[in-house]
Amino acid sequence: MSLNEHKQRLKRLREAMAKARTSAFWVSHAPNVFYLSGFTGDSGGLLVEPSRATLLTDSRFTTQAHEELAGARIGVKIVKGPLAAAATAELLGRRFRGSVAFESARVTVADSARLRKGASGRIRWRGAEGWVEALRRVKDAEEIAEMRQAARLASEVLTEVIALLKPGLRECDVTAEIEFRMRRRGATGPSFETIVASGPRGALPHARATTKPLGRNELVVIDMGAILRHYCSDLTRTVFLGRAPARIRRWYRAVKEAHEAACQVLRPDARAEEPDLAAREVLRGYGLEAAFIHSTGHGLGLEVHEEPRLGRGQKSPLGPSSVVTIEPGVYLEGLGGIRVEDDVLVLPSGPQLLTDAPREFLEL
Amino acid sequence: MSLNEHKQRLKRLREAMAKARTSAFWVSHAPNVFYLSGFTGDSGGLLVEPSRATLLTDSRFTTQAHEELAGARIGVKIVKGPLAAAATAELLGRRFRGSVAFESARVTVADSARLRKGASGRIRWRGAEGWVEALRRVKDAEEIAEMRQAARLASEVLTEVIALLKPGLRECDVTAEIEFRMRRRGATGPSFETIVASGPRGALPHARATTKPLGRNELVVIDMGAILRHYCSDLTRTVFLGRAPARIRRWYRAVKEAHEAACQVLRPDARAEEPDLAAREVLRGYGLEAAFIHSTGHGLGLEVHEEPRLGRGQKSPLGPSSVVTIEPGVYLEGLGGIRVEDDVLVLPSGPQLLTDAPREFLEL
Repeated sequence: MSLNEHKQRLKRLREAMAKARTSAFWVSHAPNVFYLSGFTGDSGGLLVEPSRATLLTDSRFTTQAHEELAGARIGVKIVKGPLAAAATAELLGRRFRGSVAFESARVTVADSARLRKGASGRIRWRGAEGWVEALRRVKDAEEIAEMRQAARLASEVLTEVIALLKPGLRECDVTAEIEFRMRRRGATGPSFETIVASGPRGALPHARATTKPLGRNELVVIDMGAILRHYCSDLTRTVFLGRAPARIRRWYRAVKEAHEAACQVLRPDARAEEPDLAAREVLRGYGLEAAFIHSTGHGLGLEVHEEPRLGRGQKSPLGPSSVVTIEPGVYLEGLGGIRVEDDVLVLPSGPQLLTDAPREFLEL
Repeated sequence: MSLNEHKQRLKRLREAMAKARTSAFWVSHAPNVFYLSGFTGDSGGLLVEPSRATLLTDSRFTTQAHEELAGARIGVKIVKGPLAAAATAELLGRRFRGSVAFESARVTVADSARLRKGASGRIRWRGAEGWVEALRRVKDAEEIAEMRQAARLASEVLTEVIALLKPGLRECDVTAEIEFRMRRRGATGPSFETIVASGPRGALPHARATTKPLGRNELVVIDMGAILRHYCSDLTRTVFLGRAPARIRRWYRAVKEAHEAACQVLRPDARAEEPDLAAREVLRGYGLEAAFIHSTGHGLGLEVHEEPRLGRGQKSPLGPSSVVTIEPGVYLEGLGGIRVEDDVLVLPSGPQLLTDAPREFLEL
C-alpha cells in the first residue's frame, strides 16, 4: 500500500468519525487495522483520533510494527496484557475525554468490559458497526490490481489442476496439489479451506476434502482461492469424470445461465439482492429453485467474506469498484452438486470478470 | 468422536451449568460446538439445556448436520438470519424462562444485542467465560490418540523437508513443500500460517514466508503444524545453512537447555507460569533473557492457541492430560532467531513429548 492511499483511508475514516461526533475510534479487527495502517501482525489495534493515530501491539511485533509503519505517521506503542485494556489505559493516561467508538460487531462482550473498566465516566465508549468495512467496499486502483492478480493466480492453478483430474485420485490429493501450486506462485495461503467434493459429497456446499478417491461418472466440485499479498480470490468449477447423462448437462446449463444472469445485473447502483433474484429466476425456470440453498455471492477483498451478502432482502447498492463473487449452485442429495463461481469487479461501465478459468462444462 | 465421549462431555458441561444455576447455555464458538456435538460446519450454535440439546444452523448445513449428529440425541433446527437472534427466538417459542449463559469471550457486542433483543425479561442472558474451554484442557484418550498422530505427522514432514533445505530455495518454496506433504498425509490444512524465516527475518517471531531465497550461513526458523481430524500440532526447528560460528552454537545450546528445563517442570499440578520461569532462568544464565520476547508456550488441541498461556503470572495448574507447547526462543535484531518447539502431553508420570523431530543443532 502506498503512503498516499493510507493517508486517504485515514482521512475518509476521520470524516465518518466527525459526522458521528466521536473523538476517537478503537479499531481492533485485524483486516481493518491492516487496511488503515499496513500493520500485518495478528495482535494489534489502532487508536484513531482526529490528529493522531497510535498502533498498540505486544513485544513480539516491535520490530515488525516499526518496519511496516515506517513513514506512516502512526505512533507505535508496545503494551502488555489485553489490547482492549491497554487502549483504555492509553486514553486515560493522556487525560482524554469524550466519546470513543469501538467495533461492536468485532469486539467480544469480555473485551468490551475491558474497554469500559477503569474508564470511570471520562470516556464514553459507543458501539460502531461497519465504518472501516464501508470504506473497504470501494476498492482503489492498487487494491484492484492486487485482486486481479490473486484471481489470475487462482484461475491458472485451477485450470492446471483440472487437467490432472482422473478417477482414483483422492480428494485430499487434489487439495494438496492446488495449495502447493498456489504457494509456489507466491500465495501466502488458501483464502479458505479448499473444497474438493466428489460424487454425492458435492451435495454438501461446504464439504471438507476427504481421502475419498474420485470416482468414474461423478461430478467433482472444486472451490478454492488464494491469498496473494493480503487479498483473497474465490473460484469454483464443477467437472464430470466421464460422459455426463443429459440431466446433469441440463443442470450445469441451468447453473451457468443463472451465473450469467446474475453477472448481467451487476452495476454500482444495483441493490445487493438483484443478482440473487436474477439467478434464482433462471433456476426457477428449470424447476431447480429449491436445490439452490445459499445466497448468490458476497463481497471479497482482504477477507474472503465481506459485505455485502448477495441475498434476498439486501437493499444496499453494491457501490462503485466493489468486488463480489457470483456463485449459484444446485445441490441434489445423493447425487452431488454443481456450482460455478467467479470474482467480479463492478464498474460503471459494467461487470468485469477477474477470474478467467474456462466456464464450459468439462467432461473429462 | 465416539457417542460415549460426546455424552460424557455434555454431562460435565451440565454439571458446570447446574453449579452456576443456569437453565441453558448458548454455545456458539465453533470448536466448542464441535467438541460437544461433532458438528463441523462453520456456522452453527448449540443450545444446551439440562435435558435436551439443539443445534441451530442454516440451510447450507442441513444434510451435514443430520449426518454428523446421527445417534447423538441432539436436535437439529435449520434457521434463517443471525444465529444469535435464532437462539433467542427458539427459547421464547418454547415459553422458556430463566437464566441463559452465553460465551462472553466469544460473542461480539453486536451479537449479544441480538441475544437480548426481544427477550423482554423472560430470559436473563448472562456472560460465562471458558466453561467448555475448561473441559477441553483435559484431553481424553481418544483426543490424545488424535493429537499424537497430528504431532507425528508434523514431525515426519518437518524432518523430511529439513533434509531438502539448501541455499537458493525460497522461503515460500519451503512452505509449499511442507503444506503439500502435510496434505498428502491427510491433514485438512496447516494449523496456522507456516513460518519460514531465514537470516535476519528470523528475528521476527511471526514472520510470514516471503520469496526471499535462503542464504548461505543463515539461520532458518521453521514453525509449522498440521490439523489432522480437527486436532492441531505445532512444531518449530531452527537450522543453520553452513558451519555456524561459535556464538550461534552457544545461543542454540541456551535455547535447547531452556526447552529442557521447561519440559522438566511439566506436571498436572504445576502452575502454568512454572515452565516459563524455568526457561527464562536458563536464558538469564546465558545473558539472553532480554532476547526472549514471548511466553514459553500455550495449550493445544482443537485450536492452535488454547488455555493456558505458559507465561509469567499464570497461576492455574496445567491439569491432568493437558497438552501444551514448549517453545523458548531468542531473537537478535539484524542477526536472526532461534526457536525450538515441541508439543508435550502432561501426565502424572511426567511429560511425554508428542513431536519427535530431531532436536540437535543441524548445520546443513
